[in-house]
Amino acid sequence: MNAPEPRPVLPLAARLPGRESTVVAVGDVRFGAEKVVLIGGPCAVEDRDLMLAIARTVAGAGGAMLRGGAWKPRTSPYDFQGLGAEGLEMLVAARRATGLPVVTEVLDPRDVATVAESADMLQIGSRSVQNFPLLREAGASGRPVLLKRGMMTTLDEWLNAAEYVLAAGGNDLVLCERGIRTFESALRNTLDVGAIAVLKERTHLPVIVDPSHAAGVAKHVTALARAAVAAGADGLLVETHTDSAAALSDAAQALSPEAFAALADECRAVARAVGRDL
Amino acid sequence: MNAPEPRPVLPLAARLPGRESTVVAVGDVRFGAEKVVLIGGPCAVEDRDLMLAIARTVAGAGGAMLRGGAWKPRTSPYDFQGLGAEGLEMLVAARRATGLPVVTEVLDPRDVATVAESADMLQIGSRSVQNFPLLREAGASGRPVLLKRGMMTTLDEWLNAAEYVLAAGGNDLVLCERGIRTFESALRNTLDVGAIAVLKERTHLPVIVDPSHAAGVAKHVTALARAAVAAGADGLLVETHTDSAAALSDAAQALSPEAFAALADECRAVARAVGRDL
Amino acid sequence: MNAPEPRPVLPLAARLPGRESTVVAVGDVRFGAEKVVLIGGPCAVEDRDLMLAIARTVAGAGGAMLRGGAWKPRTSPYDFQGLGAEGLEMLVAARRATGLPVVTEVLDPRDVATVAESADMLQIGSRSVQNFPLLREAGASGRPVLLKRGMMTTLDEWLNAAEYVLAAGGNDLVLCERGIRTFESALRNTLDVGAIAVLKERTHLPVIVDPSHAAGVAKHVTALARAAVAAGADGLLVETHTDSAAALSDAAQALSPEAFAALADECRAVARAVGRDL
Amino acid sequence: MNAPEPRPVLPLAARLPGRESTVVAVGDVRFGAEKVVLIGGPCAVEDRDLMLAIARTVAGAGGAMLRGGAWKPRTSPYDFQGLGAEGLEMLVAARRATGLPVVTEVLDPRDVATVAESADMLQIGSRSVQNFPLLREAGASGRPVLLKRGMMTTLDEWLNAAEYVLAAGGNDLVLCERGIRTFESALRNTLDVGAIAVLKERTHLPVIVDPSHAAGVAKHVTALARAAVAAGADGLLVETHTDSAAALSDAAQALSPEAFAALADECRAVARAVGRDL
Repeated sequence: MNAPEPRPVLPLAARLPGRESTVVAVGDVRFGAEKVVLIGGPCAVEDRDLMLAIARTVAGAGGAMLRGGAWKPRTSPYDFQGLGAEGLEMLVAARRATGLPVVTEVLDPRDVATVAESADMLQIGSRSVQNFPLLREAGASGRPVLLKRGMMTTLDEWLNAAEYVLAAGGNDLVLCERGIRTFESALRNTLDVGAIAVLKERTHLPVIVDPSHAAGVAKHVTALARAAVAAGADGLLVETHTDSAAALSDAAQALSPEAFAALADECRAVARAVGRDL
Repeated sequence: MNAPEPRPVLPLAARLPGRESTVVAVGDVRFGAEKVVLIGGPCAVEDRDLMLAIARTVAGAGGAMLRGGAWKPRTSPYDFQGLGAEGLEMLVAARRATGLPVVTEVLDPRDVATVAESADMLQIGSRSVQNFPLLREAGASGRPVLLKRGMMTTLDEWLNAAEYVLAAGGNDLVLCERGIRTFESALRNTLDVGAIAVLKERTHLPVIVDPSHAAGVAKHVTALARAAVAAGADGLLVETHTDSAAALSDAAQALSPEAFAALADECRAVARAVGRDL
Repeated sequence: MNAPEPRPVLPLAARLPGRESTVVAVGDVRFGAEKVVLIGGPCAVEDRDLMLAIARTVAGAGGAMLRGGAWKPRTSPYDFQGLGAEGLEMLVAARRATGLPVVTEVLDPRDVATVAESADMLQIGSRSVQNFPLLREAGASGRPVLLKRGMMTTLDEWLNAAEYVLAAGGNDLVLCERGIRTFESALRNTLDVGAIAVLKERTHLPVIVDPSHAAGVAKHVTALARAAVAAGADGLLVETHTDSAAALSDAAQALSPEAFAALADECRAVARAVGRDL
Repeated sequence: MNAPEPRPVLPLAARLPGRESTVVAVGDVRFGAEKVVLIGGPCAVEDRDLMLAIARTVAGAGGAMLRGGAWKPRTSPYDFQGLGAEGLEMLVAARRATGLPVVTEVLDPRDVATVAESADMLQIGSRSVQNFPLLREAGASGRPVLLKRGMMTTLDEWLNAAEYVLAAGGNDLVLCERGIRTFESALRNTLDVGAIAVLKERTHLPVIVDPSHAAGVAKHVTALARAAVAAGADGLLVETHTDSAAALSDAAQALSPEAFAALADECRAVARAVGRDL
């Protein structure tokens, strides 16, 4: 009589023997396929016309998807907290105008149904990576989920967080590395490019990178983006703004339209050098 | 004409000039007064009789308050997640039997009203320190709040999280240092005793320490507890279990009843050496 | 035939079964005995009269030993690098006047013989904790060694560094925790009080604490010192200066004579509460 | 009368206005020019024939320079400490056979003259980054210096360490990022690719990357190497061994000859995508 096989620790998220890489589809966009997916947009949705202008910039530069925060997690209760449902509606209008699917953050389990109705993909932010009730609601929502790594999250904890989403029924999950907190403060966070390589081995899920929050300052975003693509990232989540000096949130890190287009070009060259495209 | 005074960054949490230290009352227990408050109990509430037995142990050793988790934040979705409302009821029964007020964690903003109805104090755990919807609900609940530091939360971020609770109407807030995540892995976390001293300067709120989660292993809990009291902590949150080997969560760090009583005695001696009591 | 016993990883530094705690004697001072050893003095030796004045302050407050840097490891090559041999001579003069033994840092293996001739104890600083040639020279010098932890050093690496000293013939070694580098920047470093408890279990060597470098600012030094004694430290290494505003190195963290005396009194009370004295 | 200009903090290392990037020449190899410099070789020099075989592998794969440790800094005094002068001689023999210049680590200021006589470039290792006497000797040696970042060195501290070398007369200095120590332990260290971008702005010195020590495991070295080149690194320092399973030091991270050649090809493609070559 043989001993029973031990149950795998991460039966749904782990790259078990024979498990192929998962491709997550959001509209026509496919995370984990040949093309590196470029997502662009402002940190926070602030204004209908502005959102449209930025969306057109993203589409024009080869961006495949639109980002923008309607509910913003802010360190201080007195900072701008986002436009909420109104911001969500502006994102929908921008999608209508450009055809780009939209991803937006949801902070509160009570908002998941509302956001899932309008957004193409739900983002779970860094501060919520171990917000277990939220992970379960997002997993049960029927929408693909973009799960950011927390500033303090080990790869093991992060994959367990992904497992919460998958165990709640969410099959379509994309991981997003965005820099970790270390002793070094030259940039806002330390981009962990090694995490991309390790995750590719441990999980079948697509992995993208947010170089904007890692850098915290526009001038170093593109170097991090190139590094991420070279290391094997399946996509990039980049902040861009047509008037970045006036942005209500994280102004310093948003790329101008010109810089965003240059990032796209440079990352496309790197993507081709590693056998992919963008 | 004078320039207007700049608005303070933390108008409610900061120790503004002339602001006296706040004493937070939970029943007869007073955080921030002369006596160091000793809170004891199991990591998770598991069983009615066991909870009663542990509660009597805590009371007998000089503990002033009872802790126990009914909703447990667990890294893996497959780990024991707590007994929920049933666990809460067991805590209430233990309070009835011993007279000790109870503190328990709430994870989901949708559970705040339920927990606030039964518990004397709401705990916001490390992983929820920047769960802003939860902070607002807890602040509006009318119950005192115990706000743990996150594993990688700066003091500044932590005080801003406290500000969310206070801005939502919660006047009674106690901060709880529980160790931070560093490169050193000899203990589970690195207890930041310096944070106690710095917080006493920056905020009027009481500060307690959880040496159990910092150590992660029972044999080193008491040394950390003594250090915390010597550094000026207003209380201790300590895990104890009458049968710690059988505990369903964090078994390795729960003190036996004998060790818990010894901790109380040793910390009382240190408290008296620094002009307080326990 | 039995397999040979595996060789212990740290045959000299580890607390092997039956190994009693080591007491390190420096003149009449005994590290690891009942009394907590208080070492005081300036960061850098700057002037003969000043050094004498500070030494008398230390002796008057109950300090048992004198510290002072003659060779200073400075981040920038353009900062004051210490008086070298001249500073060493001033320390000797201060010893002659007060009877207190002196400890001073040695940075360069080529200076070990010179320093060992005059100083009672050699300090290996944080930046030199894995300077293996220096560790070997210090171990072979015949003088007791005070080995500080590096800002980045795990307990395991630190004990291996101690093993280098012991393996070179140095029997008298005292470890000194001085704060580690973490993400938190409210104080200069994060004092790892848990390290004291863990080291007491892993090694037979005495362990002292430098609260001055951990805090980086005078007003929080005493709280850290009390915590260290409560956690079981065998001594304290504290910076004090009769005119701290004028100190040439680390001015912000040196205690005034009054504050140094108050620290001694407070730490004595805590020491007695944990069954020791100072 | 104008106030005098403040003296720059890093007059020699900083990229002061108008300061062009420095190209450091080691034989025919030029760090900081168009070509990314690939340095290969074993962690430790172990045997003459083996060293020759590895050197030929490196040359054959397009490597421009040879590395190999003769004096090894090892955590434990009981680990293999390198062959010393004999190892240095084997490196010289390998240079003679292949024409590749050699870089090797020097640990002790008393060995600098000996090493400088034979090696083409002196490496200052991570643990020595703030070994100020060693930095001064290396700077005065007349040889180009490769200065590795410490595991927990900030960019600011690192540039100050470089300033020590330059202030001692060393004009030819190359910086080498090799991963920093963080809470994440999936790989041995966390490669800080952002540091490359920040350094390019702050200093005129060339910056290379050691992906082998960052990864700590062979299978993830190449992904890190590609990322480093994409981020703008001027070179790569990679461990390779013809029989890596038998290596006496850091066996797990050395690439086989095939893997080393593949790394060279992949990094060349990335280099060309960012306008350089290898």
